[in-house]
This record gives sequence, C-alpha cells and structure tokens, in this order.
Amino acid sequence: MSRADLARKACTVARAIEIVGDEWTLMLLREMFLGGRRFDDLERQTGAAPHVLSRRLKRLETVGVLRRCMYSAHPPRYEYRLTAKGRGLWPVVIALKVWGDRWLDNDGTPVEIVHKECGRTVIPHVTCPDCGKPMQAHDALARLSPDFELERNAAGRQT
Amino acid sequence: MSRADLARKACTVARAIEIVGDEWTLMLLREMFLGGRRFDDLERQTGAAPHVLSRRLKRLETVGVLRRCMYSAHPPRYEYRLTAKGRGLWPVVIALKVWGDRWLDNDGTPVEIVHKECGRTVIPHVTCPDCGKPMQAHDALARLSPDFELERNAAGRQT
Repeated sequence: MSRADLARKACTVARAIEIVGDEWTLMLLREMFLGGRRFDDLERQTGAAPHVLSRRLKRLETVGVLRRCMYSAHPPRYEYRLTAKGRGLWPVVIALKVWGDRWLDNDGTPVEIVHKECGRTVIPHVTCPDCGKPMQAHDALARLSPDFELERNAAGRQT
Repeated sequence: MSRADLARKACTVARAIEIVGDEWTLMLLREMFLGGRRFDDLERQTGAAPHVLSRRLKRLETVGVLRRCMYSAHPPRYEYRLTAKGRGLWPVVIALKVWGDRWLDNDGTPVEIVHKECGRTVIPHVTCPDCGKPMQAHDALARLSPDFELERNAAGRQT
C-alpha cells in the first residue's frame, strides 16, 4: 500500500462521509439547522420512515453530533439538539444548498440565507482565511501533510 | 400542506442530497477532486465494488456532474472528468474534510490544502460575500424567499 493509498484510508473526508454521507442523515441535518428538534416534526419534514429516522438519530447521538434532551418530565418527552460538533456541519449543508440553487433550481430558491450581522441576503462562499479571496476547486492544491508520518506509522502497526 | 412544508418539498438542499447524498458518490467526488479519472483508479481509491461505482458514474454523467471522455481509440478507453457543475461540488467535499479534520482526527490530517494563489496551507472557511466575515450556523438566518411564490403556484398546480 502506497503512502497516498494509506492517506486515503486515513482520510478525514472518508471518515466524515462514513458519518453523514447518507441521504436521511443529511436531510435530518438540514431540518435541525432549520430549527427542527422533535421526532414528529423531523419525521414529517424529512419524510423519513420512523425506524429510519430513529436509527439515524441514535447514530448521530452516539458520535456526538446531537444530544437528546428531556423537555417534558410528565410524560417524559425528548427533543434533539445539535452539539458544537453537529453545528460544525453547517458548511456541508450550506454548500449543498448553494450548489442546488446554482445548478438544480429553475424556479427560484425557496429559502434564502440572511447574514444576521450585516443583514444582507447572501450566497455564502468558501474563502481562503489567509488572503480572504474566494476559493474554488481549481484554486486549491491537495498534498500529503508532513504531519501524516505519525499516522502512517500508527496505521502500519495495525496492518 | 403549509407554505413552509412546500418549501421543504421544493428545497434545493433536498434535491442536491438526492444526487450526491450517498457514501459512494461522495467518495467518488473526493477521488475526482484529487485527480482520479479512470475506472480502475477510482475503484481502487474509493474501495467501491465495480457495479456500485459503475452505477454512480452513470448517474453522475446523466445529471451532468461528470462526462465520459475517450482517451485512447485503439482499444477504446474512457476516463471521467468533472464538468463545471461537478467542480461546483468542491465546497461540499472541502466542508466534509474541514469538519473531519476538526472533529474526527486525532493523529494529524493526512492531506492539507494549499491556496495556490497565496501559497499558504489553509483551512478554507465559509464567509459572507458581502461583509467578508466568517459565517457559521448561528450567523445565518434561513427564511422563505419572496421569489418562492412562483414556485409555490407551479407546485400547487401539480398537486
């Protein structure tokens, strides 16, 4: 196995995909970013079958993307809230929206995004944190990280 | 069905998810952004079974995310290249990487991103195109678009 192959195996994209790379999980995240918290609402708004939704919620709770909170004691009722780790997935969902609006939409987007601080309706974009310029695929070079040696050695011991 | 429900039905996030919200499709996109073009390479690098990969490639070709190009005439050999629509998915993949690096990685990320123009190793982020400030989930407000009336009427006629 080459170093590049090993990097792919250890790839954080692949590990992220393993958690959220699923239609219902992504639909669920969309709903939670729109404010959905309760099972019934999430079921209606995603269109997921109850057992499908239930499995996704449990998995996301297990990996720390959301937490289950009791909002009524008698009878006991729970709702789901995104953790900081879960809220960190906003760029994934917004990137899907921006792409969908740009490439799939013919009739005007149903939902627009307002940047609360400046009050403008915006299309959020990806930029370089260093120079501030917008970044697209052709602006970026992906290369093996020097830090990866450590991980290679650790992975080498396992295989 | 409420207007908000209808917006969800017409949602461009949902439509984007319908196309790319799948583990193997996302893995395939990752590989293509890393330069993968040929079936054998894509098969090895994603770990997808040939029939799984083949189905994903056909689907992405059908929806215009990639195109199949002949690179050898004798014998006929094809490779796959992302179209502009496909390259537009880079923010989705990079958002998964940034999230994975931040929340799933314990041993250093195997791949780093260099912004070609400024030459720095960076963690690309989402910003407001208007004021330039970074945007996270809590900075954004999602609201129904005024343009959505048109779509609502069109959808109303169908249902």
